[in-house]
Amino acid sequence: RLLFNLEVRKMDNTGYCGESFNSLQSGTSDEDMVEITGATLDFSSTDDVPPLDRDYGGSYGVGNGPNGVPKLMDLLDEPVPGVGTYEDFNTIDWVREKSKDRDRHREIATKSKESTLALMKSISDAFSGWLLMLLVGLMAGALAGGIDISAHWMTDLKEGVCLNGFWFNHEHCCWNSNETTFQERDKCPNWKSWAELIVGTNDGPFAYIMNYLMYVCWALLFSFLAVSLVRAFAPYACGSGIPEIKTILSGFIIRGYLGKWTLMIKTITLVLAVSSGLSLGKEGPLVHVACCCGNILCHLFTKYRRNEAKRREVLSAAAAVGVSVAFGAPIGGVLFSLEEVSYYFPLKTLWRSFFAALVAAFTLRSINPFGNSRLVLFYVEFHSPWHLLELIPFILLGIFGGIWGAFFIRANIAWCRRRKTTRLGHYPVLEVLVVTAVTALLAFPNSYTRMSTSELISELFNDCGLLDSSQLCNYANVSVTKISSDALPDRPAGPDVYTAMWQLSLALVFKMLITVVTFGMKVPSGLFIPSMAVGAIAGRLLGVGMEQLAYYHHDWVIFRGWCSPGADCITPGLYAMVGAAACLGGVTRMTVSLVVIMFELTGGLEYIVPLMAATMTSKWVADALGREGIYEAHIRLNGYPFLESKEEFSHKTLAMDVMRPRRSDPPLSVITQDGMSVEEVESLIAETSYSGFPVVVSHESQRLVGFVQRRDLVISIENARKRQEGVVSASRIFFTEYTPPQPPNSPPPLKLRGIMDLSPFTVTDHTAMDIVVDIFRKLGLRQCLVTHNGRLLGIITKKDILKHMAQMANRDPDSILFN
Amino acid sequence: RLLFNLEVRKMDNTGYCGESFNSLQSGTSDEDMVEITGATLDFSSTDDVPPLDRDYGGSYGVGNGPNGVPKLMDLLDEPVPGVGTYEDFNTIDWVREKSKDRDRHREIATKSKESTLALMKSISDAFSGWLLMLLVGLMAGALAGGIDISAHWMTDLKEGVCLNGFWFNHEHCCWNSNETTFQERDKCPNWKSWAELIVGTNDGPFAYIMNYLMYVCWALLFSFLAVSLVRAFAPYACGSGIPEIKTILSGFIIRGYLGKWTLMIKTITLVLAVSSGLSLGKEGPLVHVACCCGNILCHLFTKYRRNEAKRREVLSAAAAVGVSVAFGAPIGGVLFSLEEVSYYFPLKTLWRSFFAALVAAFTLRSINPFGNSRLVLFYVEFHSPWHLLELIPFILLGIFGGIWGAFFIRANIAWCRRRKTTRLGHYPVLEVLVVTAVTALLAFPNSYTRMSTSELISELFNDCGLLDSSQLCNYANVSVTKISSDALPDRPAGPDVYTAMWQLSLALVFKMLITVVTFGMKVPSGLFIPSMAVGAIAGRLLGVGMEQLAYYHHDWVIFRGWCSPGADCITPGLYAMVGAAACLGGVTRMTVSLVVIMFELTGGLEYIVPLMAATMTSKWVADALGREGIYEAHIRLNGYPFLESKEEFSHKTLAMDVMRPRRSDPPLSVITQDGMSVEEVESLIAETSYSGFPVVVSHESQRLVGFVQRRDLVISIENARKRQEGVVSASRIFFTEYTPPQPPNSPPPLKLRGIMDLSPFTVTDHTAMDIVVDIFRKLGLRQCLVTHNGRLLGIITKKDILKHMAQMANRDPDSILFN
Repeated sequence: RLLFNLEVRKMDNTGYCGESFNSLQSGTSDEDMVEITGATLDFSSTDDVPPLDRDYGGSYGVGNGPNGVPKLMDLLDEPVPGVGTYEDFNTIDWVREKSKDRDRHREIATKSKESTLALMKSISDAFSGWLLMLLVGLMAGALAGGIDISAHWMTDLKEGVCLNGFWFNHEHCCWNSNETTFQERDKCPNWKSWAELIVGTNDGPFAYIMNYLMYVCWALLFSFLAVSLVRAFAPYACGSGIPEIKTILSGFIIRGYLGKWTLMIKTITLVLAVSSGLSLGKEGPLVHVACCCGNILCHLFTKYRRNEAKRREVLSAAAAVGVSVAFGAPIGGVLFSLEEVSYYFPLKTLWRSFFAALVAAFTLRSINPFGNSRLVLFYVEFHSPWHLLELIPFILLGIFGGIWGAFFIRANIAWCRRRKTTRLGHYPVLEVLVVTAVTALLAFPNSYTRMSTSELISELFNDCGLLDSSQLCNYANVSVTKISSDALPDRPAGPDVYTAMWQLSLALVFKMLITVVTFGMKVPSGLFIPSMAVGAIAGRLLGVGMEQLAYYHHDWVIFRGWCSPGADCITPGLYAMVGAAACLGGVTRMTVSLVVIMFELTGGLEYIVPLMAATMTSKWVADALGREGIYEAHIRLNGYPFLESKEEFSHKTLAMDVMRPRRSDPPLSVITQDGMSVEEVESLIAETSYSGFPVVVSHESQRLVGFVQRRDLVISIENARKRQEGVVSASRIFFTEYTPPQPPNSPPPLKLRGIMDLSPFTVTDHTAMDIVVDIFRKLGLRQCLVTHNGRLLGIITKKDILKHMAQMANRDPDSILFN
Repeated sequence: RLLFNLEVRKMDNTGYCGESFNSLQSGTSDEDMVEITGATLDFSSTDDVPPLDRDYGGSYGVGNGPNGVPKLMDLLDEPVPGVGTYEDFNTIDWVREKSKDRDRHREIATKSKESTLALMKSISDAFSGWLLMLLVGLMAGALAGGIDISAHWMTDLKEGVCLNGFWFNHEHCCWNSNETTFQERDKCPNWKSWAELIVGTNDGPFAYIMNYLMYVCWALLFSFLAVSLVRAFAPYACGSGIPEIKTILSGFIIRGYLGKWTLMIKTITLVLAVSSGLSLGKEGPLVHVACCCGNILCHLFTKYRRNEAKRREVLSAAAAVGVSVAFGAPIGGVLFSLEEVSYYFPLKTLWRSFFAALVAAFTLRSINPFGNSRLVLFYVEFHSPWHLLELIPFILLGIFGGIWGAFFIRANIAWCRRRKTTRLGHYPVLEVLVVTAVTALLAFPNSYTRMSTSELISELFNDCGLLDSSQLCNYANVSVTKISSDALPDRPAGPDVYTAMWQLSLALVFKMLITVVTFGMKVPSGLFIPSMAVGAIAGRLLGVGMEQLAYYHHDWVIFRGWCSPGADCITPGLYAMVGAAACLGGVTRMTVSLVVIMFELTGGLEYIVPLMAATMTSKWVADALGREGIYEAHIRLNGYPFLESKEEFSHKTLAMDVMRPRRSDPPLSVITQDGMSVEEVESLIAETSYSGFPVVVSHESQRLVGFVQRRDLVISIENARKRQEGVVSASRIFFTEYTPPQPPNSPPPLKLRGIMDLSPFTVTDHTAMDIVVDIFRKLGLRQCLVTHNGRLLGIITKKDILKHMAQMANRDPDSILFN
């Protein structure tokens, strides 16, 4: 019934990540998303209005100029602080913000012709965007490097400690020993497992149990610290953050979501959560961390601090930076931002994002967190080409990825909904501890789940070389004919490979189940790495299977010609990579960016085709089983006002079916341009909760003049009553250009044309809703007025559209919570 | 004075590529951009209206239904052929086209629930886009392969012929001989230069003159053939095509520009033009060729044949395909399409473009035109890293590229304008022959200009190996300490290198000057390769200079630490590549796509930073010297209605300053919704030349009801007069939903609500022009109505906006020719 309402419907007690939004205001600070004017105006209590520096007495249009010509000065000349800002949990008006920025730009350009100083300022203004990008890249790259190093160290800490110094991780500790390959790295003398340290030996069941126990204890300690820090200091630091960032980039305001507290706590707890061995990754949270960096650094530049639209350009670039450092893929990161996260992405931002992503990648590389001059643990180089027939298993992997993606989204959303609606959500710390305990207890016995998930993926992607001594590369030795070449012929699997297959199968089932309950808990948790791990395991299993099939049955028709004995025809590592792409694609529904990220990991254009085939299949299968990707599903679960730009609105409804008021409702609340007194307007504001009112010529004609925001109206009247002589309840409010002469004894009028939007968007009542949705998406509107034959008839807000879309898709329209 | 006029102002006699548009209608065919209904309606002569299959008698709203309820049937039920199509040289209405496609989609989706056949149709409809992309990729890849092979052969034909068979090119001819390196390839026994063939020897001045003469003759023959074919069969085949494709993608219609004749002739003449040795490349024309393929293949699918917006999605993808095959860079191609060419590029198109670009790249690779499994001649692999200090020469190259780009654009535009306005444009064949003769005469003596430009670039990009025997790699032999490594230490230059430096300097000046007059001639001509060649020469010169400096002065402060003797510290090939990127960036103002294309050529993420530094500098320098890239400059030269999406409109004007009618003009021509007779409307049409009329409630109220296109109105009245009983001049035209009862003896009314756009876009007269421009760009409007307080006041068309922008930039507003 309420149209365009201000009332922020607080989420129930078990909101996102198990916390209500009411209690989320702690930790907001200067870096908040909204604070634009420096001083926050709390206009519910009049005492808080900050004293104005100048007297506005003469500028409210009191009386006329000397020759009876009315003064043209109005509020525009001296903006009241707070006018033009937004409330928390509201949507910005893109058109207004962009227009504001153009005004600012125009002003600087005009001034720059006057003096050298102004010219310098204009130049520094033009380059501030680049400087900001440089800073974002440096900061995010440095943070990512720190996170990688700390997580590496703390993951190893669960297994043992270095005698040279507890601050060395396992690899670093064994730097000088040559036995750093997978199998023998436990034999490095300086690295002591906890059992060795405590009972002096690493053999026997007692030592095993000791190591097991220490592993679980560390895991519990890390996850307890993580969840406690999140709860105590920055509730927004939980989860992956990508759904919220998508919503923020589309124009929503969540104060403090990208603030400095969130950044600090998310960085620390991310390390803890990853180290605790939970089935989660750091990629999604890294995007959040990079966006926090972007938002905080925006405060250094007025241009970006003051403008919500400009700031979102920086955040789009920051999202690219996040993926760039997570996967060492700058181009993939930019495409990820373009495809998956961003809403408004002009070409200028594309170029700047690319720059920032590169700076971040090179910063990370100079930190060299993995000691191999690579940006990620799982960079691979394959040596042998693939055969056209292999597309069949690749497409099978795509189908698996699609089914798993759709299943995961359903299961995870069902679980998260249960957390929101049942008592489960009341005990977030307990939940995290239980899941950690279960994960650690089940993970330790299996070496493939015990190692960190990135290491597992790296292991699975790896193409077995001659000298590889890992379990997965334990093939029977056949006479190698050409040692000089990098490519090894297919060989029969040794016993260790069969053991590994069993362990991997168990790991697959374990990862598939535990990830469902892990994602959405109250710790920072990314989804990329667990999804990729599931796919990589499945792919490697299939790959080894294919390889053995090809080895033992190379005379079959399908293998004839390309799998002769001694030829290297199947690369199981490639299957793992294709599987990883398929599963990640099924969960997130990424397409181009996913393929490009994977391309940047392998470096060979040749492997794009398998990746593309699998990703395409996976997306089609997953889309057939459920329209939404995981991020859209979480956005909808949380009721954010997000207008998806990918989905076509395909119903044949008209604007008049969606607009308010409905046929049976009372007519639209409007303000007339010259007929209402301060008192009448105040009572209109008190009686309704709409966030804005159309201004019309008269109630009879209903001809539209403009639109005024409730917030601006309240602030202006409040301000005028306090600061302007003689404005009382009986004063008339004018939105006209010229104030007509007032009767002698009447109180001075209040001119408010300056706060009125003179160019409100209108559509006719016969406009098809698909066109209206398109206009809202492309222009980023908050509301649009509906006219019929030139008369004002109603209003459509973004929330109305989202509710209508939910209704059309047979979903609950009340699930849309914010405007 | 005329607003929104239909009158296509024919270009003067020396229009684009020296040909007027009047004579360009030859060669239009089924593949034309516009023919949608199958039969073209020439509504100026009534005889041509095709007979309708059904009698429309009852559906024109004659009389009311049984209970006095008026019939709701109107023209919408049975669309008159021709309604909703566009004229040549007009702009499409994106909103209408997209809406039409959604209607079609909705219809198919509804039907698919009814029968299995309809479901199959719906699925095949959904996959037709992918099939189309596959076909476009295959066709464009195959054509590109053919062009590469033919151009290679014909370029070699200028120098000699193969005795094994005249159809072998030089490299193919010497396949079995091992001496295929640059210096010794002339010694292959089966390949005979013309002098050898005719006078039996290749030595002495006479043989040289003989070769020289044959070279010039072949060049003249090829260019004469090219220009004659273009003139005779497909005038649109000239030039690079990218400016026109940009305009077409933004919604303009040029019939026949992407037709089958253009495709055939452009493919053939491109080979001829490249082989003739003119300073032009095949990259731009390849984009045109790929777009022709896309447009022609669209005709296989109703979905794309019938909808101008959908077809443009395919063309955007085809543009990506063109660059993908030109540079072997699928990702770069997609980004090029996104950044440089496309106007409407939804994410779905991004994914499909990527697919098509990959298919094309793999098709081309399987054709293997260069015999090295690479997609391009100038794929390179560098071995040594670069040093931070080298950024200084890279930035210098960027400055050079920017200055050259700005100079080139100015000079080329001045030359093209001269061609259009003076007698020069009357002799296109002569012009081409003279330029070819000059090019050939000057090019032959210098081996670097004699070889094809791609070969030159490949040579310059090449990092000198130990076994390289080319002139550029003739370094003095120093004791090589580590032969096993690929990296060679810096060595002092030998005498041949100094000779090469001189020749390259001359080649640089020659290329810089000749390209200015070549681009824009009446042959297919791309700009990428000549620009890259200029930059590569400059870069190589600087690179060799730096290398020698570092060798002889390795004790200087700047070289200390990284250029010790015996170290490989400077790679001249990298300088050439950076220079090429800088010059190409200066001319086209590409950014991300350029860097990604170059990245795909080198394959190493490491070299992105130098490329980026140079491209960024080059763009900034070029932008400071002149705002427009070469394509925008050519669009403006030709007066196309192209609304640039990159440039911000920064002037503070309002909609009322731009709209027509102006204050002194007669009021806007409108149609009332129920008051006008057929005769009155016909005379309104005859008196004005506007392409559409607003429909209002009444002349007094000026309240807007809708908007009707002139073309639709003419067709409908014409049709009604012929087919519908009793519609005469005195019949009244109704745009209302219900027709009021008519007086007994009056002629039957004509209901035209069906052809009226019920949701015309409106803005208020106070809307800032920057917002209006934004709306036009983002929604792809043709026109927008302007209201004041709910009353219709005027109209703004795309042409009005472009004229206003031209005026604001102190350019001639009459340079905008089309609507």
